[in-house]
Amino acid sequence: MIAKSYIDEIKWNSDQLVPVIAQDHLSGKILMMAWMNPEALAATVDRGVAVYWSRSRRQLWRKGESSGHTQRVMSIHLDCDADAVILKVEQQGGIACHTGRQSCFYRELRDGEWTNVEEVLRDPKEIYS
Amino acid sequence: MIAKSYIDEIKWNSDQLVPVIAQDHLSGKILMMAWMNPEALAATVDRGVAVYWSRSRRQLWRKGESSGHTQRVMSIHLDCDADAVILKVEQQGGIACHTGRQSCFYRELRDGEWTNVEEVLRDPKEIYS
Repeated sequence: MIAKSYIDEIKWNSDQLVPVIAQDHLSGKILMMAWMNPEALAATVDRGVAVYWSRSRRQLWRKGESSGHTQRVMSIHLDCDADAVILKVEQQGGIACHTGRQSCFYRELRDGEWTNVEEVLRDPKEIYS
Repeated sequence: MIAKSYIDEIKWNSDQLVPVIAQDHLSGKILMMAWMNPEALAATVDRGVAVYWSRSRRQLWRKGESSGHTQRVMSIHLDCDADAVILKVEQQGGIACHTGRQSCFYRELRDGEWTNVEEVLRDPKEIYS
């Protein structure tokens, strides 16, 4: 089931993972970067919602399972080296980050310091209660 | 010189690298994904143009050095886990990919197949001649 050709075409790294960028399909805002193994990619394609591989928990990570912040996949893109993937998604709840922000990339380098530039939309305690 | 705090805050992987997404600062289009080591990030900040680490050549990669397709850095962003970076850039020549396309992510998964969906803007032979 996993031996689909579109999966075989990807250059999985030595851990059998590929980096995946989740981008809002309308605004183009980059929401997060995570990783997939072949099983996660197959599950994402089959289900139409983002499933990643959690490197810390070493298991499939059905994004939004506990928070409700699932990502409906609108399209999937592969780069020239076949070693990076983009998911264009519709972000449920408008929050991708576990900190309660829209995007995980909420820090910007300003005058040599990483500075928070995005507001918290919802208290994480509320999201994960 | 490299021991700047903004560099120390990044969680470099076991190869001392971090994945970097280059995004057009106006359109939001994702142009490419590459890697940086601390020296590449410091050079990028100091010069204001993207400098990556080439994993295949194992050396600093001054993007655009041979093609002229440099990337002027407008802002730099870090994610919640401090293990992924976005560069918002102005892409010189409008071409980021060595295939002569605007973006390296020119393939989209359609009916189970990676399908080219972006045109070649300039023949690579012309770019690298």
